[in-house]
Amino acid sequence: MDKNRMANRLKLKNTEIDDPFWNGIISTVRNEVIPYQYRALKDEIEGAEKSRCLENFKKAALTVEKIRNGEETPVYECDKWFYDENNSEKGAFKGWVFQDSDLYKWLEAVSYSLINSPDIKLEEKADECISLICSAQLDNGYLDTLYIINDREKGFTNLRDYHELYCFGHLAEAAAAYFEATKKTALLNAACKFADLICDTFGKTKCLGYPGHEIAEMALVRLYRLTGERKYLDCAKFFINQRGAKPFYFDSERNRKTDGKDYIYNQAHLPVRQQNEAVGHAVRGVYLYSGMADVARETEDKTLFDACERIFENIEKKKLYITGGIGSTSDGEAFSFDYDLPNDLAYCETCASIGLIFFAERMLEINPCSHYADVIERALYNTVLSGMAEDGKSFFYVNPLEVNPVACELDSRKRHVKSVRQKWFGCACCPPNLARLISSIGSYCITENENGIFVNQYIGGKFACKNAIVEIKSDYAASGKVKIKITPKKRSVIHLRIPYWCERAEISEKYRLEKGYAVFETEREITVDIDFLVSPVLIGCSNLVSENIGKAAVQRGPFIYCCEEKDNGKNLHLLYFNEKTNFEYKDGFVLADGFRLITDSEGGLYKKYEKPKKEKMKIKLIPYYRWGNRGENEMRVYLNI
Amino acid sequence: MDKNRMANRLKLKNTEIDDPFWNGIISTVRNEVIPYQYRALKDEIEGAEKSRCLENFKKAALTVEKIRNGEETPVYECDKWFYDENNSEKGAFKGWVFQDSDLYKWLEAVSYSLINSPDIKLEEKADECISLICSAQLDNGYLDTLYIINDREKGFTNLRDYHELYCFGHLAEAAAAYFEATKKTALLNAACKFADLICDTFGKTKCLGYPGHEIAEMALVRLYRLTGERKYLDCAKFFINQRGAKPFYFDSERNRKTDGKDYIYNQAHLPVRQQNEAVGHAVRGVYLYSGMADVARETEDKTLFDACERIFENIEKKKLYITGGIGSTSDGEAFSFDYDLPNDLAYCETCASIGLIFFAERMLEINPCSHYADVIERALYNTVLSGMAEDGKSFFYVNPLEVNPVACELDSRKRHVKSVRQKWFGCACCPPNLARLISSIGSYCITENENGIFVNQYIGGKFACKNAIVEIKSDYAASGKVKIKITPKKRSVIHLRIPYWCERAEISEKYRLEKGYAVFETEREITVDIDFLVSPVLIGCSNLVSENIGKAAVQRGPFIYCCEEKDNGKNLHLLYFNEKTNFEYKDGFVLADGFRLITDSEGGLYKKYEKPKKEKMKIKLIPYYRWGNRGENEMRVYLNI
Repeated sequence: MDKNRMANRLKLKNTEIDDPFWNGIISTVRNEVIPYQYRALKDEIEGAEKSRCLENFKKAALTVEKIRNGEETPVYECDKWFYDENNSEKGAFKGWVFQDSDLYKWLEAVSYSLINSPDIKLEEKADECISLICSAQLDNGYLDTLYIINDREKGFTNLRDYHELYCFGHLAEAAAAYFEATKKTALLNAACKFADLICDTFGKTKCLGYPGHEIAEMALVRLYRLTGERKYLDCAKFFINQRGAKPFYFDSERNRKTDGKDYIYNQAHLPVRQQNEAVGHAVRGVYLYSGMADVARETEDKTLFDACERIFENIEKKKLYITGGIGSTSDGEAFSFDYDLPNDLAYCETCASIGLIFFAERMLEINPCSHYADVIERALYNTVLSGMAEDGKSFFYVNPLEVNPVACELDSRKRHVKSVRQKWFGCACCPPNLARLISSIGSYCITENENGIFVNQYIGGKFACKNAIVEIKSDYAASGKVKIKITPKKRSVIHLRIPYWCERAEISEKYRLEKGYAVFETEREITVDIDFLVSPVLIGCSNLVSENIGKAAVQRGPFIYCCEEKDNGKNLHLLYFNEKTNFEYKDGFVLADGFRLITDSEGGLYKKYEKPKKEKMKIKLIPYYRWGNRGENEMRVYLNI
Repeated sequence: MDKNRMANRLKLKNTEIDDPFWNGIISTVRNEVIPYQYRALKDEIEGAEKSRCLENFKKAALTVEKIRNGEETPVYECDKWFYDENNSEKGAFKGWVFQDSDLYKWLEAVSYSLINSPDIKLEEKADECISLICSAQLDNGYLDTLYIINDREKGFTNLRDYHELYCFGHLAEAAAAYFEATKKTALLNAACKFADLICDTFGKTKCLGYPGHEIAEMALVRLYRLTGERKYLDCAKFFINQRGAKPFYFDSERNRKTDGKDYIYNQAHLPVRQQNEAVGHAVRGVYLYSGMADVARETEDKTLFDACERIFENIEKKKLYITGGIGSTSDGEAFSFDYDLPNDLAYCETCASIGLIFFAERMLEINPCSHYADVIERALYNTVLSGMAEDGKSFFYVNPLEVNPVACELDSRKRHVKSVRQKWFGCACCPPNLARLISSIGSYCITENENGIFVNQYIGGKFACKNAIVEIKSDYAASGKVKIKITPKKRSVIHLRIPYWCERAEISEKYRLEKGYAVFETEREITVDIDFLVSPVLIGCSNLVSENIGKAAVQRGPFIYCCEEKDNGKNLHLLYFNEKTNFEYKDGFVLADGFRLITDSEGGLYKKYEKPKKEKMKIKLIPYYRWGNRGENEMRVYLNI
C-alpha cells in the first residue's frame, strides 16, 4: 500500500460523458429504465410481480404516526424471507425482507442521472419518495419497514438472514448520492441518524453482530468520507473485524450450533484476514471485499489489503468467466470451487458483476495496475450490459454462456437460466443496480492523484481532474481508436491503460510501460491519438477449466462474442471454428470460418468411433451483451475448435 | 405381436449357473449381500441408517392382535413420506412410506438364492419373517404397516404419493418367488388375500385409482400366471387403462387441480397408449412399461404393445447411457429430454437399470429381437454391476459416467453423486433389487418357444429347456469365447444372439442371420464353438448428445471401460485418445495410446488461442463396473479424442 501511488476516481459532477457507444445506453437508462422502475416501485406495471415497496413505506409511516400519537400498533409475524400478499395480514409488510432497498437503489440511480441531466420533474418525484422515507423513520433513527410495520421488538435479532443492515447500506449510498446531486440533506440526515443508531448498537462492548448481507461496510465508509464522522469508519471496521470471529455471532442469534461452515455463504466462516478465496453468495462477497478495501485504505491496514489482493487474484485467476461473470453456481447464487466455470449452469448474476466492478475500482484506486481496470472492462462490456435489453424494458438476472431453451424449460437444473430477458422480478435487485452503475459510469473512467492521472476506461467525454482537463473522443467500442486531449494545470504523469486484449497499440506520444499503462509526462496541452488495433481474436481458456477443453471463444476489443441460433441454426454444439479461422468484421458482427458436424438422427446413440463428418460454414457471431434481443433461441459463447 | 414367435424365459429352477465371471458375483450376493441385508432390516448394522422395517412389521402385528382382541389402538399422523424416529411418537410407524418393500425384496432375493443353493438356516429366517408378515395382515387382506399402525381409515387415500400398492407389488413378487422356491404357500396366500382386496376395491364401478409408483401391474400378472386367477390380470389391465385417463384420478384424491403435467413424474399425464416417450421417475417408468408389456401379451393388445415398442425405442435411441444407465436427472430421479445425457450430473439409478432389464426381457419374450437382449447386456454388465462393491459390502444408488470428488463435495448440483459406494441407504431400494436380479440371473439367459430356443446371454451353466438341454461353457466376459452343447428332444431352431458390439464372429455351425441372431436348426446333439473375437474398440456417441462432442469411450466385449485417477493421475479431463489409438489388453485392463494436455496453472484463465501443448501417455482403463473399488478418486468414461 503505497500512499503516493493511491488515486481517486473523479466526482461524477466533474465528468460529462459523450460517447457514440455509451450515449445510447445512458439515455436508455434515463428515459426507459428509471421511469419504468418508478412505476414498478408503485406497482403500476401490468403483468409484473408486485414490488409493494412504496406501499411498505406508507404503512411504516402510518405506524410511526400512530406511535407518535401514542396509539397502539398491531404486531405481525416477522420471521420469513418473503411475505406473500395472499398469506399475510393486510396491514403487514409485503414482499421480500430487502424490499426497501429497491427504492434506495432507484434513488441512487436518479441522483447520478440528475447530476448529468437535471430533470425537475424527476427530482420532484425523488423528493416525494424521500419525504415518505423520512416519515417512516422511527425517532431513534431506526429505518426498516419490515420491522417497523411488523414487530419493532425484533429489530437486529436476525442479522444473518434478514436484511436491515443491507437496507441501511443502500439507504446510505442513495443518501450520499442524492446529496452530491442536489445538496439536499433530508435523506442524508435520515441515513446519518440510522447510522448513529447502528454505531450506538454495535461495537466491542455492545452487540457483536455484523451484516448477513454485506454493503453497510462500504456505505459507512462513504458516509464517513462525506461527513468526516469518524465513528462511521470505526463501525465499518468493527463489522469487518467481527466477521468470522469466534464464537460465531450468527450462532448466538438463534442458538445455532455450527462449526462455521454454514457461514461460507455469508463469508463469515473465517476472520476476513485469513480468507484467501472468494466464496459464498457472490454479490455478498464482492460487496464485502469492496468494504474491506475501503477500510484497508482509510485505516492503512496492510494485512486487510493483502486479503483483498489474495481474494481478487483468486477471482481473476480461477473464478472469473470470460464474460466477467462471477458466481458459477445457482445454489446460493455463489462462487463455486476453483476452475468450476460451467457455461450452461452458470449463475453469473448481473449484480455480482456490478459488485465486482465496485471491488476492482477500489483496488485500482489503492494500487493502480491495469489488470483491475481490465476486469472492470470485461465485466462492464459483457455481463453487465447483457443484463439489460437493448430497449431497456427487460432484464437478465442470470447471465449464462450457453443456453438451450429446451433445457431451460425441461431441465430443472437449469431453471434459473432464462432464455429471454424478464420484464421485472419480485426480487428486483439487478435492474436498479444496473441503472445506478450506468448512470455513474463517468466516475469509472479516470482516477487521479497528486502526480497525475490514469485513464482507465476509454469512454468519450470531458473530465475535470484536479490538475488537468481531459477530453476524450472515443471510438473505442467500435474501432479501438481514441483521441485524448489533456490540458494540464501542472506537470502531470499521464497513464493510459493498455487493454488486456490489445496485442499492439499505436500511440502518438512516446511512452514507457508501467503496470499495464502507457506512461508519459507532460506539462503542456497535448492530444494523443491512440489506435488499439482492434480485430477479432480466438481466445482459449485455461485447460484447468474442464468445461472448455477443445473450445474457444471470439473476442473483439472489449467485447466477447457469441453465436445465436437465429444466425446459425439449431444445435450450436455442432459448430467448430477452424484452427486457423479467418475473420471478417462488419456491421457489428463477426464472421468466422468454421464447420458444422453432420447429424445422423436415425443412427442410434452408440457406434464404433469414426472421424466426424462435417460441412464448411461461416459462423456468425454477435457481441455477447446483445444476445437474446431477437426472441428465444440457442446461444453459445464457446464453440468447439 | 406374432404369437408363434413369442417365447418364455426358463424357470429359475431349470437353470444352473456355472460361469467363471458370474460365480463369484452370485456367491458374493449369497454370502455377503443377503446376510448383510438381513442385518440391515433388523437394524443391526452399526453406523448405517436405521431401516425400522422389521420393527414396523412387529408393531403392525401387535396392532392386528389388539384389533382381534377388541382393544383400542392409537391413531398417528399419516401424511408424510418419511417418519423420522425423533419426530414421531414411539408407537408409530418409522422410516419411509415404502419401508415394507425392503423385506419383500430381500425375501425375493432369498427365494432365488434358495432355488439354486438350498440353505436350511436361511430358509428358517425367511419363514420367521413370513410368519411375522402374515401376522401383520388385517383380516380383510390389507397389508401395509404404515396405515395399519398409524391410521387404518386412511388406506388407499393417497395413491399418488404413498406406496401401499407398490409395497403390495413387491409382496406379490416375493410371494410368487418364495412359492417357486419352496412350494410353501403362507406368503402366497397373504399376497393373494391382499390382491383379492385390491381387486374388490379398484375397478370401473369402484375406486378409479391406480398406483403412484408402479409395480403392482406386473406383480398382478405374475400372480395371475401362477394362480390362474383371471381377476388379477383384469386388475392389472384396469390399472394400466386408468393411468392418465381424464379426469385425472390423482386430482380427485386431494382436490388437486392440474392439467396433468404434474403427473409426468408418475407417467400419468396421458393415457398410456398415447405415450411415445419415456418420462418421469425412471424406476416407476420402466416398472410401468414392464407391466404394460405383460398385460399386452396376456390380453393380446397390439395397441398397448405398440406403445411399449415406441417407448422402448425412445429409451434405446435417445435416453440410454452407454453404460445402460437411464434417468439422467436427479430432479425426480427422472428421464430428461431426448439426448440430454450429461456424464457428471447423471442420476442413472441402479434400480432403474434393473427395471430396464425387466422391461427389455418382456419385450424380448414377446418379440425376440437381439437388440432387447443387447440392452439387457449393456445394463447388466455395466450400471447394474457397478451398483455393488466387489466385496458386496457397499453400494451405489447413482451411477455417474464422470466423477470428480471435489465437485461431489462442493457442488450442490452433484450432491447426489457419490464418489465411493455407501454402506447402506435409508432409502435402500438398490441393494436388495440388485440381490434379487443377480440371484435370478439364470432365467435371463435363454428363452424358448415351441419352435426352438434363443440364447440371449452367454452365461455359463446348464439350462433345461422344454425341448432341449443346453450346456454353456462360457468365457464370454473375458475372451468372448463360448462353447454350447445342445441336446434337443426334437428338431429345434437354435438362435444365438450376435452381441451388438461384435464386429465379426466365428461360429462353428453354419447359420443364417435373423433379427440379430445366428440361426440354424438341429435335431441331434451338437456342440457349437463361438468366438466373438473380443477386442477393445473406441465407441463414439451420436453428436446430438452435446456432452459427448469430441469424445469417445472404450468398450471391450460387453464391458464399457473407464479411466480412474488411481491409474492416470488427477485431472482426467486433460486426457485424449489418439484418433488411431492402439490398444493393449492384459489382466483385465486396457492400455490405450493417448496424450495429456500440459497444464499451466500460473497462466491465468484467458489467452489468445494456441494449439494445446501435450505429452504422450498410455491411458489405463478398467471396466466401468469396477470403478471406485480403490478409494475415492476421479473417474471418466468418455475421454477427449
